[in-house]
Amino acid sequence: MQGLSCGTSRIVGCRFSVYPMTDNFVDVIKGALEEVDTSKVWQYTDDVSTCIRGRSEHVFDVAKAIFIHAAKTGVHVVFNGTFSIGCPGDSEGDTYMSQDDRRMNEEKSQAEKVTAASQFALYPMNNPDYMQIIADQVQVAEKHGTFTKGVHYASRLDGDANDVFRTLEEAFTNTSKTSDRSHVTMTVAISANSPSKKDM
Amino acid sequence: MQGLSCGTSRIVGCRFSVYPMTDNFVDVIKGALEEVDTSKVWQYTDDVSTCIRGRSEHVFDVAKAIFIHAAKTGVHVVFNGTFSIGCPGDSEGDTYMSQDDRRMNEEKSQAEKVTAASQFALYPMNNPDYMQIIADQVQVAEKHGTFTKGVHYASRLDGDANDVFRTLEEAFTNTSKTSDRSHVTMTVAISANSPSKKDM
Repeated sequence: MQGLSCGTSRIVGCRFSVYPMTDNFVDVIKGALEEVDTSKVWQYTDDVSTCIRGRSEHVFDVAKAIFIHAAKTGVHVVFNGTFSIGCPGDSEGDTYMSQDDRRMNEEKSQAEKVTAASQFALYPMNNPDYMQIIADQVQVAEKHGTFTKGVHYASRLDGDANDVFRTLEEAFTNTSKTSDRSHVTMTVAISANSPSKKDM
Repeated sequence: MQGLSCGTSRIVGCRFSVYPMTDNFVDVIKGALEEVDTSKVWQYTDDVSTCIRGRSEHVFDVAKAIFIHAAKTGVHVVFNGTFSIGCPGDSEGDTYMSQDDRRMNEEKSQAEKVTAASQFALYPMNNPDYMQIIADQVQVAEKHGTFTKGVHYASRLDGDANDVFRTLEEAFTNTSKTSDRSHVTMTVAISANSPSKKDM
């Protein structure tokens, strides 16, 4: 899949946290980070969340890899975050837009088999057609075979983590392309290894 | 603070998860739920998140109480969720709008002292003035004394959990009142007992 930023200088960001439900959550997060190549994104972590910024494909590549390498430990892990593009209040700083489009983590992520359950919501800002835009992207998810159902305030995706992230990235990218200056955010909760019964 | 829904039939919902970073996360969540009176909200939990719906004041009352009673255990706990009102695709179902406005959990929540760090973002949909609306609510947070700083894609609040939730509720309520049919969402991550150094 071609990235959003080809031929543009639009910065994509993601503010997210990874929550491993275990006493040694610090080790799980650090262990995952050690396996992820973050060289193509700007990154800053505080006590609440991590922010990564750069070209669309690298932001999604890094987000997916961190989730997958944390989840493959078998611990109940959730990735919860918001992807963003085009915020009028955004700055030009903290970006790595001159990187090429080769994804640094794709091969290692594809080698893992992690089953993921996800709920996501798209927010195309300042756009009177936003409900139709959202509906169109649910159809994309249906074509991918990852869409399970709509729930209050979100859509549910299930499947292999690589497939779920592919749907999320395409839904976000498609929505971002509705105009040259669109402002779009997408919230995502992705869970693996939950002891609760799947609600499909 | 008067609830949003006084004199209106506007349903507020919140889809959220509570993440206790401990091996016995199930016990922490169940223990917190046992202390919370959820009788005035509709509630449904699946393997990814919980959705509560009802009058604005009860949705915030229950959300805050669940976070506080989980966090008072001393475990590193995060509440991560999205509040919503006025979604055109929302249904009338699953609501408890005929309840009175007395908050069932306020007294017990106020009795706890939990220090919280939060990052939140407001999304007023389909509104060309949305950036100004967001800026106005940051000023509200500044008046409350909870606002710490802006970060990429969010605003940071710090303080007692009761104060932080008060700011969040007021920011959401004010934004919702910008029109009778406004559609507004607000994402919130609230953390307690993190071993990481506070980034204030």
